[in-house]
Amino acid sequence: MQAVRIAGVGSTVFGVLPERTGRDLFGEAAQIAIEDSEVPRADIERLCYGNFIGTLTERQGHQAPLMTAAAGVTAPATRYESACASGGVALMSAVEAIRSGTTDVVLVGGMERMHNVTTKQATKGLAMAADDLYESRAGVTFPGAYALMARAYFVEYGGTRADLAAVAVKNHSNAIGNETAQFQREISLTDVIEAPTVADPLGLYDACPITDGASACVLVSESYAAAHDLNTPVNITGAGQGTDSLALQERKSLTQTPATTRAATTAYDEAKITPDDVDLLEVHDCFTIAEVLALEGLGLYEPGEAIDAAATGDTTADGNCPVNLSGGLKAKGHPVGATGVSQVVELTKLLRGDHINTDAVPDATVALAHNAGGTVASATVHVLEVCG
Amino acid sequence: MQAVRIAGVGSTVFGVLPERTGRDLFGEAAQIAIEDSEVPRADIERLCYGNFIGTLTERQGHQAPLMTAAAGVTAPATRYESACASGGVALMSAVEAIRSGTTDVVLVGGMERMHNVTTKQATKGLAMAADDLYESRAGVTFPGAYALMARAYFVEYGGTRADLAAVAVKNHSNAIGNETAQFQREISLTDVIEAPTVADPLGLYDACPITDGASACVLVSESYAAAHDLNTPVNITGAGQGTDSLALQERKSLTQTPATTRAATTAYDEAKITPDDVDLLEVHDCFTIAEVLALEGLGLYEPGEAIDAAATGDTTADGNCPVNLSGGLKAKGHPVGATGVSQVVELTKLLRGDHINTDAVPDATVALAHNAGGTVASATVHVLEVCG
Repeated sequence: MQAVRIAGVGSTVFGVLPERTGRDLFGEAAQIAIEDSEVPRADIERLCYGNFIGTLTERQGHQAPLMTAAAGVTAPATRYESACASGGVALMSAVEAIRSGTTDVVLVGGMERMHNVTTKQATKGLAMAADDLYESRAGVTFPGAYALMARAYFVEYGGTRADLAAVAVKNHSNAIGNETAQFQREISLTDVIEAPTVADPLGLYDACPITDGASACVLVSESYAAAHDLNTPVNITGAGQGTDSLALQERKSLTQTPATTRAATTAYDEAKITPDDVDLLEVHDCFTIAEVLALEGLGLYEPGEAIDAAATGDTTADGNCPVNLSGGLKAKGHPVGATGVSQVVELTKLLRGDHINTDAVPDATVALAHNAGGTVASATVHVLEVCG
Repeated sequence: MQAVRIAGVGSTVFGVLPERTGRDLFGEAAQIAIEDSEVPRADIERLCYGNFIGTLTERQGHQAPLMTAAAGVTAPATRYESACASGGVALMSAVEAIRSGTTDVVLVGGMERMHNVTTKQATKGLAMAADDLYESRAGVTFPGAYALMARAYFVEYGGTRADLAAVAVKNHSNAIGNETAQFQREISLTDVIEAPTVADPLGLYDACPITDGASACVLVSESYAAAHDLNTPVNITGAGQGTDSLALQERKSLTQTPATTRAATTAYDEAKITPDDVDLLEVHDCFTIAEVLALEGLGLYEPGEAIDAAATGDTTADGNCPVNLSGGLKAKGHPVGATGVSQVVELTKLLRGDHINTDAVPDATVALAHNAGGTVASATVHVLEVCG
């Protein structure tokens, strides 16, 4: 089985970019990643592309052919969609293509554009990640669904809004200086706690923003990297995917995310590591409670134990195991289809040493990316390791 | 590399089914395919699922987790979208998963539901397979785009509406007795030629209908089939994919479909066959001209030579190389996300001997499925062969 090397990475600025088209955004991210990789465009054999609701925000389905043109390549191209995990599932497929031995060079990326429609339209679109018959039509919004999970967690294990607020404060702090992040400013615990309630117990600063942006990576086989003398210090050594019921009502527990656990188990097995080996992570913090559930689902904390990981400093930049050094979805932003790929962009830079926060993890060799869709009905986990 | 065996296939009835949900339709197709395969549900390791515009017709993105539940499985699941080739790209990924050696059993399928919205809404949705900025907003509909291709073909190579009409007559004739087909009735050349014009030179009977329905296949590795003593007489021996510019204006020619040719070249190479070896085909006849262009793009006819293939009887059920014995998209129907998989369902039955039209191809051993998206900006080709 061919090892999968990350040859190049790139993201656009994330933020409010209603004047830019999807193809323009993706073309820029691809351009940065391809230049970073030093791989000739003609060698790219496939495009794996994630997007969630382009049919609603750009009246554009069938985006994969558009994005090959935007990236200046002519490879066969496929769009993958798994709500907010669309980027992660595109990555799964890109990794598999290289491992299979049939493909040496894959461009993988994602894009989302949401500020060219109204916030109401965007919210309506995002709700399509939930079960239309049993959740959306009953009035369950995404903040509402995660609020249910947070409330259940508080009841089952304890925890406070201040614990959750510490996650938001940490991630905002991490984003400072990250030049592609949407929010590059500190917020205080008081800011978070006193922010307007969106769905109790979650307030405005417990939620990630609506974001436009794109990310891309060039993945190559180990043999291609060697033959072309490429600088590819980071390997993807594990890739796992999990699926759960779409509607919360069909779950055994509101405080467990078995899709994450399943994805992690596969990824750890492939990489031959345990959660203890992970030096830093990007996890899917669409809401503050989501980061807590992710860290437990990934096996880094026992159930009920991750709630104060940010508050105690365990997961802060100077902590034992920094989480979301990029700023996470909360502050870096969440261009839905791009997010899973953007996590790998950020981790690659952190491991290579060219990220603003690299100094926080000088000896890091193992990183983990966790991307989730809906209320974690879909999850992917990728393990990145510094070679040799 | 593991060989890919087709263990079971199934489709719902195709037609006007506004009272049924997407999950209900897919669940039924999966149930038929799984029963046909005799594979225990617990052995299914992955779901590859194609859907085009569920966000618009069912307000439902993130369908893959829903469809695992509908199929009664718990495997990791991904949705693939490439407009009308969504089923074909899902198949590509399913084949790759088994070939890679990591996966033994994959459920692959697709579903589309369009009659629960108005025809205007459905048409608007289908237009999202074209380039929004340079085609749809300029008023180019899909019939309009294929009409441009037909007109260009007539100018470049000759041909008449009667030649195209013979394609529709043939496909309607083939669908008679196919119990899942949407239209099971003969039409005459006069019916087609005198039908209302949709976009000159294409009339109403040159176009496939709007269809609700689902299809599924269970694919297994050769070693799994042997270990479980499964009856799997049909192999997928070749799988290719091609991508072209989304907008017609960026193409060198309106009468060539290089995405089809690229997909076919890969598939033929993998299967170690030439076009001459193909005994029967299901091709993407969303419009009559599309069947003509497909047969030329696949290399079965030289450019300009396939226009009278149906009229001369070459591709009819009693011809040299029958095309669309199922009835094709034209008469079997075109539930967009399911179509690429439904072609494989039909061909498997034809090769196994349990299809209404099996008698037309008693000695057939090699079949080809061709699925296309948009104006062939995406194409997949799968070669099916009877085992040894």
